[in-house]
Amino acid sequence: MSFNTFGHLFRVTTWGESHGPALGATVDGCPPGIPLTEADIQPWLDRRKPGQNRFTTQRREADEVEILSGVYEGRTTGTPIQLMIRNTDQRSKDYGTIAQTFRPGHADITYWQKYGIRDPRGGGRSSARETAARVAAGGVARQVLAALMPGLRITGYMVQMGPRAIDRARFDAAAIEGNPFWCPDPATADLWADDLDALRKTGNSVGATVEVVASGLPAGIGAPLYAKLDSELAAAMMSINAVKGVEIGAGMGAAALTGVENADEIRMGNDGPVYGSNHAGGILGGISTGQDVVVRFAVKPTSSILTPRQSVTLDGQPAEVVTKGRHDPCVGIRAVPVGEAMMALVILDQLLLHRAQVGEGPRGRIG
Amino acid sequence: MSFNTFGHLFRVTTWGESHGPALGATVDGCPPGIPLTEADIQPWLDRRKPGQNRFTTQRREADEVEILSGVYEGRTTGTPIQLMIRNTDQRSKDYGTIAQTFRPGHADITYWQKYGIRDPRGGGRSSARETAARVAAGGVARQVLAALMPGLRITGYMVQMGPRAIDRARFDAAAIEGNPFWCPDPATADLWADDLDALRKTGNSVGATVEVVASGLPAGIGAPLYAKLDSELAAAMMSINAVKGVEIGAGMGAAALTGVENADEIRMGNDGPVYGSNHAGGILGGISTGQDVVVRFAVKPTSSILTPRQSVTLDGQPAEVVTKGRHDPCVGIRAVPVGEAMMALVILDQLLLHRAQVGEGPRGRIG
Amino acid sequence: MSFNTFGHLFRVTTWGESHGPALGATVDGCPPGIPLTEADIQPWLDRRKPGQNRFTTQRREADEVEILSGVYEGRTTGTPIQLMIRNTDQRSKDYGTIAQTFRPGHADITYWQKYGIRDPRGGGRSSARETAARVAAGGVARQVLAALMPGLRITGYMVQMGPRAIDRARFDAAAIEGNPFWCPDPATADLWADDLDALRKTGNSVGATVEVVASGLPAGIGAPLYAKLDSELAAAMMSINAVKGVEIGAGMGAAALTGVENADEIRMGNDGPVYGSNHAGGILGGISTGQDVVVRFAVKPTSSILTPRQSVTLDGQPAEVVTKGRHDPCVGIRAVPVGEAMMALVILDQLLLHRAQVGEGPRGRIG
Amino acid sequence: MSFNTFGHLFRVTTWGESHGPALGATVDGCPPGIPLTEADIQPWLDRRKPGQNRFTTQRREADEVEILSGVYEGRTTGTPIQLMIRNTDQRSKDYGTIAQTFRPGHADITYWQKYGIRDPRGGGRSSARETAARVAAGGVARQVLAALMPGLRITGYMVQMGPRAIDRARFDAAAIEGNPFWCPDPATADLWADDLDALRKTGNSVGATVEVVASGLPAGIGAPLYAKLDSELAAAMMSINAVKGVEIGAGMGAAALTGVENADEIRMGNDGPVYGSNHAGGILGGISTGQDVVVRFAVKPTSSILTPRQSVTLDGQPAEVVTKGRHDPCVGIRAVPVGEAMMALVILDQLLLHRAQVGEGPRGRIG
Repeated sequence: MSFNTFGHLFRVTTWGESHGPALGATVDGCPPGIPLTEADIQPWLDRRKPGQNRFTTQRREADEVEILSGVYEGRTTGTPIQLMIRNTDQRSKDYGTIAQTFRPGHADITYWQKYGIRDPRGGGRSSARETAARVAAGGVARQVLAALMPGLRITGYMVQMGPRAIDRARFDAAAIEGNPFWCPDPATADLWADDLDALRKTGNSVGATVEVVASGLPAGIGAPLYAKLDSELAAAMMSINAVKGVEIGAGMGAAALTGVENADEIRMGNDGPVYGSNHAGGILGGISTGQDVVVRFAVKPTSSILTPRQSVTLDGQPAEVVTKGRHDPCVGIRAVPVGEAMMALVILDQLLLHRAQVGEGPRGRIG
Repeated sequence: MSFNTFGHLFRVTTWGESHGPALGATVDGCPPGIPLTEADIQPWLDRRKPGQNRFTTQRREADEVEILSGVYEGRTTGTPIQLMIRNTDQRSKDYGTIAQTFRPGHADITYWQKYGIRDPRGGGRSSARETAARVAAGGVARQVLAALMPGLRITGYMVQMGPRAIDRARFDAAAIEGNPFWCPDPATADLWADDLDALRKTGNSVGATVEVVASGLPAGIGAPLYAKLDSELAAAMMSINAVKGVEIGAGMGAAALTGVENADEIRMGNDGPVYGSNHAGGILGGISTGQDVVVRFAVKPTSSILTPRQSVTLDGQPAEVVTKGRHDPCVGIRAVPVGEAMMALVILDQLLLHRAQVGEGPRGRIG
Repeated sequence: MSFNTFGHLFRVTTWGESHGPALGATVDGCPPGIPLTEADIQPWLDRRKPGQNRFTTQRREADEVEILSGVYEGRTTGTPIQLMIRNTDQRSKDYGTIAQTFRPGHADITYWQKYGIRDPRGGGRSSARETAARVAAGGVARQVLAALMPGLRITGYMVQMGPRAIDRARFDAAAIEGNPFWCPDPATADLWADDLDALRKTGNSVGATVEVVASGLPAGIGAPLYAKLDSELAAAMMSINAVKGVEIGAGMGAAALTGVENADEIRMGNDGPVYGSNHAGGILGGISTGQDVVVRFAVKPTSSILTPRQSVTLDGQPAEVVTKGRHDPCVGIRAVPVGEAMMALVILDQLLLHRAQVGEGPRGRIG
Repeated sequence: MSFNTFGHLFRVTTWGESHGPALGATVDGCPPGIPLTEADIQPWLDRRKPGQNRFTTQRREADEVEILSGVYEGRTTGTPIQLMIRNTDQRSKDYGTIAQTFRPGHADITYWQKYGIRDPRGGGRSSARETAARVAAGGVARQVLAALMPGLRITGYMVQMGPRAIDRARFDAAAIEGNPFWCPDPATADLWADDLDALRKTGNSVGATVEVVASGLPAGIGAPLYAKLDSELAAAMMSINAVKGVEIGAGMGAAALTGVENADEIRMGNDGPVYGSNHAGGILGGISTGQDVVVRFAVKPTSSILTPRQSVTLDGQPAEVVTKGRHDPCVGIRAVPVGEAMMALVILDQLLLHRAQVGEGPRGRIG
């Protein structure tokens, strides 16, 4: 079955292929009266857009979003919002030979094995291009969140590329927008630039780790047990192309901790409980604690590389595959705005679920 | 909102609190005609049952499952199956002081902050005891899978406890059932026993990493884009109590790889494509490749410990919390059968989704 | 597929067969802090209980509800509420011959044709006994509505039995509880008693029409376009056993009206718009107008009758079917509390949907 | 909450307003490999298109559908299909005064009361124009059904307009396409033409009853209990604009029948059970019997009429409303292809649900 809808109440259905006429997102369940124009969404798409520096694919897409429904005189009406992005730079010929072979590490082969048919142009539906629709929908979610939860801030950045991680001691949020890697540690960003130049010359690619943080989310948001805030975030991030792991707070490292180490001790602050640490990543029992919500995910290296890899053809013959198109050497870079968009979608959906069951805002007071 | 249903077509709704009269699972969407009695489910519950050795909580629960509906003369009828497990060993008094304070690292506080009311007895709904219902439902899923996909095997085991990981070179599947840790490396299991004895003496607890593998799943199962097989597995595992990270295949380690390293090269075998490696963990584009599906998750250390931790009371006063009840020093151990159950639930649900859209079995042939 | 869950946010999954050990409802998504005990639910079940007078089946069921989860110290916690009703009067032997033949007009045959297996005892899952679980869940919904929307009143009654309809000029709401037919016209109730006595003597049964009215629902509740208030009510009522038609307001009679006749003219009252008529049945565009919501549904005559009817056996042989068990001669009578319960479930679910998208209460002011 | 998705597995999300740039349907869950081009869908849209004779609105819309995704080289790929229809004839000025007043019997007022904002141009989202998207999606469903269930035939027609019903004795299926009313009784069609001419001259409108029949659906399709085939059909038809009642088989008339009359007696035919009558409308217990599935629904008269009706303005002032735009005097006519489309959507969705749970085709044999 294909299941192209994300969210329980703020429901986003993305549609479209890499090289079809258009792609987009149908957004249902949006609260009414929210200010929304194309200009509110476009900046988020521009952040994700390819071809902005030498470290992302040189494919040129305008990625201009059109709102086709659900907005009247600049405000949402509560009816479905259709967001359409036309595909403009489709060099299908780049993919001619790909139609008969399968790139190792790519979804070419499994789409074929599942459906018995696939759109080979640019990876079709499995193309990372689909994430443009997520980012557009995330832009709508951000407008709603700005109205309903004005203190919320969502920030994504890269913390590792290949074997090289940032130095947390040098963490500088202000630096994130200042380099092509959304890196909060400029010294590491410089090293990554060298690393990536070297890799590109050898026709290779590399993985990365992205961290997304939401600050200002009040305590009490989350829908236990099977739509827990962390469970939804895990599903959201793992649904992004090429992601192979998701962590909340201490993440996989929690396995190495003792209970004494892991306990985030609590004391009273002026506005409620304050925590001495955040191993929990802002989530306990699937519900927000009021601390920063911290999610990390690992993006595998692009499978479309210039180095020949052994594979098979549709006919079952051996083949050496070299992918010549214009591909990202580190697709993790462009996953940063996508991770932010998914965080926005999850939080808004959870907020609406909370409003439905509990009413406005969290409930149990402490102190 | 509470969302206590798991699955799209094989839908499991768990219910019940740690110290209420009973807990269970309502299973809807089960195919008809499947052999099913309590005796088919009970062995899976027995694997998870507490009090079986000195490394799990000494709470004694019979955990006997009753089937209240959906089965006629030993076969499923296609109607909802109600699985009920009575709670028999409820020493609520153990939790007296807990009702007024919040254990650091526990969902006590967030349930209160969300709902303004909580059942403090034994963690209420956030108790790991809820996983008994998952294991029971997983037992039903296994019966269905045995009928629809007889070659499937699901195996879980622990690969790390605290900082000590198994030695993969000594991996012995036959050893898993032979030690109290579901450990495939007996030498490491012995060390873990020593480690855990030492920890318990100091009133501490420890985290763990669990790996679950599904073998024999054919290529083509998965529901892109927002119910991808890996996305569903991530949600499933992250919804288990205390889980903080989920990995597929290479997992978080994929960030450190190059595209050349990460490509699982393909050649033709007798029955279709064969892969030279499995960094993908058996999933590409959210669809199974036919290789082993490999999932790992990290379980944080139990937050209920004997070492005093700083916290606050309901009234906002400082308090030192010591949890005296009978708790697992390494809750990861009992998470192994739970992870297996979630794997079974996800795979069956995905199989039904596949049957719905594509019909019986995978479709596109290679060679 | 079986789909035994009703509702989007206040989600009720009913389970259980007529002659199994128990049946019940799993209620998920209930707001927290609502007062709830068995004593709040039992009166609604007692209204529906069989054997209360000579016009309903003489089967004796205590229909005592037990709350197994989701309630702590008399208030809902926001976690799933399990409602269980044990079956106590199961004379399975009454159904011995039924297992090999199919009652004309009964779901025996289609359950067999769908699933290849069926529980023949008392109709199994297709028994009207399942509606006890709906009424129990409706009792929970009423508690929540009493807290969230105190002005709401839901009233059901029978308006037709066989060819004989009530005289609307004699409508007396106070009379509804005073006769065994929930009839608002006592003179017609007396005639129905005679009609039904005559029918029973000949081993026959009869259909009926039930009307359910919700007063006090504010304007603005409804979820267009595919979960419109009227669309949800139509699904809810049509899902009740033996229902063959559903009407809102003018209903099927709307076909005969002109636009001039059908227009419910509007003027301003003290508290907002006031309507001169209610052909709309309180719903326009799937959203409540603030007038009474008026739903009617037709219940076909019980198919289990003593008059022989021609049918076939499992082996395809001709057979005359006579159903000897203890059956309702007019199942429409006991459908009245069921219709009320479904109205409560729909309205609460719609109210939660409204809270999620729009926030508390309706929005656009007039005047 | 807005809920603009129809279907469980074949999921159609319609979007768009009457006078926005475009409207359409996002179709998710479509089986792969089905032949599909715009030319397969357009004929169904042409049937519904306005302005084809003097009895429907003179608004001119090309209603040309574009497929933006989900199809490759003329076959569905299993990924979401985006169907877009541009609005071309938008005379928004016709609706100038409507923005400040509320048409009696129209959703103007409730949309405002719910959302506090509405798109007043042409009824916005509540316009019957939305049904074009349903018909387009129904065209896709018909292509899939043609492949999966080739014997299925879906036929809609009008059986009543105002107080005048067809004479069933003159029923002639071949006549349906031969008059502007989709009327199977040409003599009545002539009378309707006179009736409607007279009504239009007085600035009035009229209601109608539509019947839709599905032949060739095998026994065993349906998803009890809350997604029964009849329950889904009731929801589907009631969700169409202006529908106020839905009947299956004997419908509301079932109330007047006795059990002896209502029993559809069964005998063995060559291919399985054969029924002597079809009061059940082809559905027992929510599951198809193999007989014709018969659904009827009543459409109220258009609320946009030239005869002045009393209403109020946004400011709460009294106002006489006259709607001057170009409106259908009997919107029931154009509801015929919409009812057919909804029947196709329901049956396909139910078929996929059946495949998921039971596998291919029905199961229990008789004889």
